[in-house]
This record gives sequence, C-alpha cells and structure tokens, in this order.
Amino acid sequence: VTRVALLGFGTVGSAVARRLVAPVPGKPVLTHIFDRRAAEKRADFSPNGAPVVWTDAVETILHSDVDVIVEAIGGLDPAGAWIRRALEAGKSVVTANKQVVAREGHALWSLAARQGRQFRFEAAVGGAMPIVRAIGEGLAGDRLTRIDAILNGTTNGVLSQMDATGCSLSEALAAAQARGWAEANPSQDLDGDDARAKLAILCALAFGLRVDPLQIAATSSAAIVAADFAEARRSNGTIRQIAHAEYDAARRELTAWVAPIVVDRGSLFARAVGPQNAAVITGEHSGEIGIFGAGAGGDATAVAIVSDVVAIARDRAAIVPPPAVTSDFTLRPSPFKLRTSHFVLPEAV
Amino acid sequence: VTRVALLGFGTVGSAVARRLVAPVPGKPVLTHIFDRRAAEKRADFSPNGAPVVWTDAVETILHSDVDVIVEAIGGLDPAGAWIRRALEAGKSVVTANKQVVAREGHALWSLAARQGRQFRFEAAVGGAMPIVRAIGEGLAGDRLTRIDAILNGTTNGVLSQMDATGCSLSEALAAAQARGWAEANPSQDLDGDDARAKLAILCALAFGLRVDPLQIAATSSAAIVAADFAEARRSNGTIRQIAHAEYDAARRELTAWVAPIVVDRGSLFARAVGPQNAAVITGEHSGEIGIFGAGAGGDATAVAIVSDVVAIARDRAAIVPPPAVTSDFTLRPSPFKLRTSHFVLPEAV
Repeated sequence: VTRVALLGFGTVGSAVARRLVAPVPGKPVLTHIFDRRAAEKRADFSPNGAPVVWTDAVETILHSDVDVIVEAIGGLDPAGAWIRRALEAGKSVVTANKQVVAREGHALWSLAARQGRQFRFEAAVGGAMPIVRAIGEGLAGDRLTRIDAILNGTTNGVLSQMDATGCSLSEALAAAQARGWAEANPSQDLDGDDARAKLAILCALAFGLRVDPLQIAATSSAAIVAADFAEARRSNGTIRQIAHAEYDAARRELTAWVAPIVVDRGSLFARAVGPQNAAVITGEHSGEIGIFGAGAGGDATAVAIVSDVVAIARDRAAIVPPPAVTSDFTLRPSPFKLRTSHFVLPEAV
Repeated sequence: VTRVALLGFGTVGSAVARRLVAPVPGKPVLTHIFDRRAAEKRADFSPNGAPVVWTDAVETILHSDVDVIVEAIGGLDPAGAWIRRALEAGKSVVTANKQVVAREGHALWSLAARQGRQFRFEAAVGGAMPIVRAIGEGLAGDRLTRIDAILNGTTNGVLSQMDATGCSLSEALAAAQARGWAEANPSQDLDGDDARAKLAILCALAFGLRVDPLQIAATSSAAIVAADFAEARRSNGTIRQIAHAEYDAARRELTAWVAPIVVDRGSLFARAVGPQNAAVITGEHSGEIGIFGAGAGGDATAVAIVSDVVAIARDRAAIVPPPAVTSDFTLRPSPFKLRTSHFVLPEAV
C-alpha cells in the first residue's frame, strides 16, 4: 500500500484528505498530515477510523515512512525548500504549487529523476482539466507549436459575468468572491501573474523551454469596463483573458503573452463561463486538440492531486528502493529568443 | 536508447516509422519493421541513414533485442496472439488495435503487469485526442459516472456533411471516401461496431468494468436521411453518432449504447465536424471535463502511438530487467447489470 503525507490542511488539502481516507483496499492511504495549526484542525477531521498522524513539525513528515508527500501549502517559501527536501529524502512529490513549478520546476524534476522518484504537478495548471498530462505525455509524440488557453478561473468568472449581465468589474468581482471563485485580493488573477506562471509551466512541457514567468508579457484585465464588452459584441465577440504561446522551433523564437482579448462568440473560449478553464493545443501532426473543465475549487484541484498520487502508486519503481536513475524530461539546452506582443482591445483571435 | 519494432507498415505504421527514424539523441529509435510484404515495401522507405531491419517473419521481431513492439496490423487475429507473445518475450507493447483491447485487454494488461512491462493503447480510442490518458490517469482520482462521446470519425464526417449540405448519406459517404475518411465498406463505422469497441475500452478505464462490445446496444446510422436532419433542425438540433455510458456504482448498473441521436446545435458534439472526435466525461468531484481533436488519419494515430512509446521510454522500469511486479490496473471483480436503451430519432441529449 502506498503511504501518503499531506502538507497543508486548507481548502485543497482538506479536500485531498477526504478523498484519501476512505479505506479502499490496495489504494493509496493517507497516514500523515502536517499543518501549522494541526492542534486545532485535527478536531475538525474524522478520518473514518483510519489512523492519521497529525503534526505541526515538518521534520516528522520528512523522516516518516511515507512514500508520497502532497504539498498543498502554496507560495514559494517554504514550499519549494520542503519539496526539495522531500525528494532528497527519497519521497515522490505531488504539488498544486504553480509558482514553485514555474520557477523551480527544472531543478526539482532533475532532482526527482536523479532520485528515481516522481515529481508530479497536474493540479498546478487547469484544475481538474488534465492538461499537464495531455501536453507532457499524451501529445509527447507530436511537435507542438502553439497553446491558447484560459488558465485563470477567477478572471474568467469575472469577465463572463460582466458579459452575461452587463455589470461592472467590481460588481462581478464581488459576486465571484461571494461564490468562492475569487480571493479578497484578486490582483494575481486579474493582472495575469497566475496565468503566466501556468503558461511558463506549459511552455516547459510543450516546447522544452525554460521560461521565467516574468518574461511573459501581461496586460491586466482590471481596467476592463462594460463598454469594452459592448464594443466586442459589435464584432460578434466577447472578452476573455487568454494565455498564448507560440514556438517557432526553426528560428528558436517563443511568442508568449497573457492579455484580455476579444474572442469570437462561437469559440471554445467564449463558451467557457464561470471559473472554467479551456485550452487549444496545436501540433504539427495532430492539428488542434481541445480540452476544458472546472479550473478552480478545492474538489477539482483535489481530483488532479489524487490522480497524481494514484499514478505514482501504480509505478512501483517510484516507490520501492532501489531508485532507478531515469531522465524523465529534458529541457532543450539551446537558447531561444522571447518575443512578446502586447494586445490592445479589441483584437480578435 | 529505447529500441522499437513496428508490426505492419500500412497507413498508420508508415506514419509511425516516419516519426521514429529521425535520429534524435536520447529518443526512441526504430530498429525493426515487420510486414508481410516487407520485400516490396522496404523499397519505398528511406530511413534517413538509420539502419532498420526489415522482415516478413514475426519471429525475427519477437526474438530481437527491441524494448517496445508497436502493433499496427489491426484485426483480432493474429494481432492479439502476437501482442501476447511480445509481452511474454519481455517487450512492452503499444497498439492502436481497438478490437484486441476491447476483447482481450483484461488478459493483456494483467500479463503486462505480471511481466513488469507496459501495455499502452492511447491510439485505440480517439485518434490524437488523449482520452485514454485523460480517463485512465488524469481523472483516476475521481469517481467517474458518465461518458458521452463521438468516437467514430467516419460516421461524424458523413453526418456533419449531410447536415452542412443537405446531401444524402450515400453522397456524403462517397465524399468521405474521396477524402480518405471512410473505407470502401463503412458498415463497422455506421453500424456502431467501431464505436462500441472503443466505448467498451473507456468503460474498463472509467468504471473498472469488463464489458463485451457486443453487450452494448447499437443503432445504425446507415438509414438516416436528409429529412431526419430537417426534423432535428426544427428543435435547433442536429444528428451525431453518440456513444453513451453511465455507471451507477451503488446499484452496479451500467447503461451503455451507441446511436445516432439529436444533439443541441450549440453543443460540443454538434460543433465536431468532419472526422473529429469529442467527449464529455463526468466525474463526481471534477464535474464535466471535455476533450476533442482529430479522430482519424494516419498522422493523428501516429502521434498517439509515438506518445505511448515516449512514455515507455521514460519509464526505465518497463524496459530494463529485472521486471518489477506491478498491478497497473485492476478491474472490479463484482458483477454488474447492463442496461441498454435504444434511442429513436429525434431524442435530444
């Protein structure tokens, strides 16, 4: 049986815990939970009879006998360091942490490969929509050239609400906050920081490129007003925050940006409403492949995390010693030139 | 380096060969090709300098030093027996063969697990659309309840052409044949045999059920006439061949059928035109996840096959001896009751 520890018992962590404590024979089982406020949180958690060790000391987890550590703390520090230490301790790691994967992913998957362990992050991009697997594995046999995607559920909820009701951005934001789709400070979402971290991850998977999220141009959606939607509607369009990346392998040129742009009303993107995510991936041989699904919410994110845990549990080589030396994923070492384009409304894709 | 052998040098096999002979350091390399007509086909193939062994004797492949065997022959016999012998010989196997996977998949993935090898079949369902990974891995952390999908590119090409032009089925079929989307005898496609084999595979992956394709009710699309489309249009719909499966885990009841039905004109399914495939997968926790892409064609199928080969190449444990005993995928042993419903046009989903 695969033994799992959880770091962080917030919205996502508690949803993961609920999925992993049901005692199914042969399935991964949650044995340890770390949380800074373990003492008070453990009272709210009834693990269905299965014994779970609670701790507020991360060392307890790192020195335990678990096979897989799920990092659900968020933020760069200390999450990045703890993931590194978990891999060094011979654990496989699953994370939903887009910032850590976007900035330190290269070092972490190299470390995981050296350790013969797995480092998985389906939940870092796209919520329950399995886009990390689609790009990193399902289309690995193609040469991918382009990604267009809605990667931020909060901004999509706000923009689709403005479109549907004609309300202002602040009204749409208040409604999204009331429904749990938006945080108190939504600037990471509206400004595009969240989407460009996710796009940087997808560029690594799709094109083998190491891209700093800060290199990706971002135009904020915070200044969009009802009149912009009226203008877009005149050309049979609406407005969505789109993350775009296109790689010209021959010229080694990457074009990458995140911006609110006008999309055709019949397009996949216009049809994504509320906190949905959607993506169209273009490959030389497979043409356009589309995928969409719930982009936010603890339950959707928990599905992606538990799927990664299950994948590791199926791969005994990533659990039992001795570690095999693998090279799971190699970034192209050659330099590339980053081109970024700023788009001004209205601009149709 | 992972060494790959190819069984069958037809449309799909030759597309796979073209993708695997480009000499990329560290990537899987094609070393052997079996074809009954090896002597004449080898003349058409220039492997870019890399040496490839051609043979018309399958024993040569089974006794070679290859790590992965790609089966691209099609049909149940002898493909099924050769896949079994390849796994017994310690090779990992990749196949596009929906009939073999639907009927003998259970025995073959058990054998692969006992051998510590991989048996992959992304190309058996959905062409380049990575639905096998999406259901079997990306959503493995959810409890899936329902699948609705367009799984046959030929029938979709015919029906969408009838819808677009008002032509007869035989005219649409002739056009599809001219474009290479339909075989001379399209009855497997129109009657639903192709889609129900694929649906049986998805039921195994999504619900852990062993379903004989012949248990799945199928209504043929061959009798659809232009007047049916006119009728569907009056309710703002159109007609698509849909494969449907819904599993009630509590009652252990599977409802599964393939039939031409009326779908809403704004739906994902109505928007799939030509030989496209599309699917909506419903999970208890992730809600609806959609995926679509090119469902037919040698290049699209080759992408899925090469992606599977790459996945095996990354998993050194599936290549280097000694084999580890794994249990990659377990069918639920409990019995279930199959419910099938025949749908009569027009019936909206």
